Amino acid sequence: MYTDDISQKELASFMDYTLLKPEATSAEIEQLCAEAIRFETAAVCVNSSMVPTASAALKGTRVQVASVVGFPLGATDSLAKARETELALLHGASEIDMVIQIGWLIERNYLGVIKDIAAVVSAASGALVKVIIEACLLNDQEKRLACALAVGAGAGFVKTSTGFSKSGATEDDVRLMRETVGASIGVKAAGGIRDLHRAVAMLNAGANRLGVSSAAAILTEARK
Amino acid sequence: MYTDDISQKELASFMDYTLLKPEATSAEIEQLCAEAIRFETAAVCVNSSMVPTASAALKGTRVQVASVVGFPLGATDSLAKARETELALLHGASEIDMVIQIGWLIERNYLGVIKDIAAVVSAASGALVKVIIEACLLNDQEKRLACALAVGAGAGFVKTSTGFSKSGATEDDVRLMRETVGASIGVKAAGGIRDLHRAVAMLNAGANRLGVSSAAAILTEARK
Repeated sequence: MYTDDISQKELASFMDYTLLKPEATSAEIEQLCAEAIRFETAAVCVNSSMVPTASAALKGTRVQVASVVGFPLGATDSLAKARETELALLHGASEIDMVIQIGWLIERNYLGVIKDIAAVVSAASGALVKVIIEACLLNDQEKRLACALAVGAGAGFVKTSTGFSKSGATEDDVRLMRETVGASIGVKAAGGIRDLHRAVAMLNAGANRLGVSSAAAILTEARK
Repeated sequence: MYTDDISQKELASFMDYTLLKPEATSAEIEQLCAEAIRFETAAVCVNSSMVPTASAALKGTRVQVASVVGFPLGATDSLAKARETELALLHGASEIDMVIQIGWLIERNYLGVIKDIAAVVSAASGALVKVIIEACLLNDQEKRLACALAVGAGAGFVKTSTGFSKSGATEDDVRLMRETVGASIGVKAAGGIRDLHRAVAMLNAGANRLGVSSAAAILTEARK
């Protein structure tokens, strides 16, 4: 069990410091990277067009660049997702946060969903792939199936939410996703994690990565 | 001047019947296409993963398939947008609705913005490209610049909005965009057009294409 007494350093090690709004400028991405370096977060999470900017800003540090792919709707052609993945890695990303094709999951086109994920995993050539299931659009059975398909396709993480849909991560979703994938892969909670208490609650529910746009504010709350 | 007495047939000829929510199923896309055929809309507008489904449903009809690209954030790597464009055309789309890189426009990286649009125009090989400027995130000067860059890059249309940001098309935006591009290219109004009166107002403001998710409801209001 983690408590609100978690150290700043340990909490930072779980965090993807995130800036995905479409109007973000290069200067804002550089500011994000500077804060990620200062707090030693696990990664920054940015849109693929901003990967070169983030990679340059983080060069020589241990902070990883995570690129979103097919984001935030997940309804991009699978081969375009694969190409976006290749380009992100080429430009310095080492982690990929992709969104599943949600309509196909709902209509039970499981082959389509797993092939879509596998196209990205294959293009990632061993780099970590996090699979966003957008839990707020799914019922519990669909959430479990999405997690199972992600494991089957070779993903390294399942992730709750894009932060661009109806709602973000809930503790219940994180718990259900962790129960489904067991210890085999990671669980990332994202969307609406805006204070220390909630970040800690997500870790206790089973998350081992947190997507946060307010990382600096949360980490400033934590014990030094 | 158009009036609310516009005929159903004429109004339909301006419409892209649109379904872009991430949880849309193939059956819902097929239903969209059936209604587009019934009313003879100009096109349907779908996500790129749904282009094969829409193309199959529209085969042998005059209704075009428009695919969104880099949607809705516009922050996808330019070459991934180009690949998504190629794949959409390969699978039967003949129109492309792409989103600009908004952060680059705001930071005055105009070369980046125009190269991004041109990458899609080039990949489109003569197919119609509509450039979404997401007007609600821009000031008037930025809107005018975005339109000028779209013309410069060889686009066939500028388009107000994705429908996924803070707000959709306004008459003022359509008027400003039409003033900027003159008669050289088209103007598409999208987002929040939910009744006949508003659709007609957009045409009078200068739009010659309307993105509408409630096309059937609007057209049912119009004179037969």
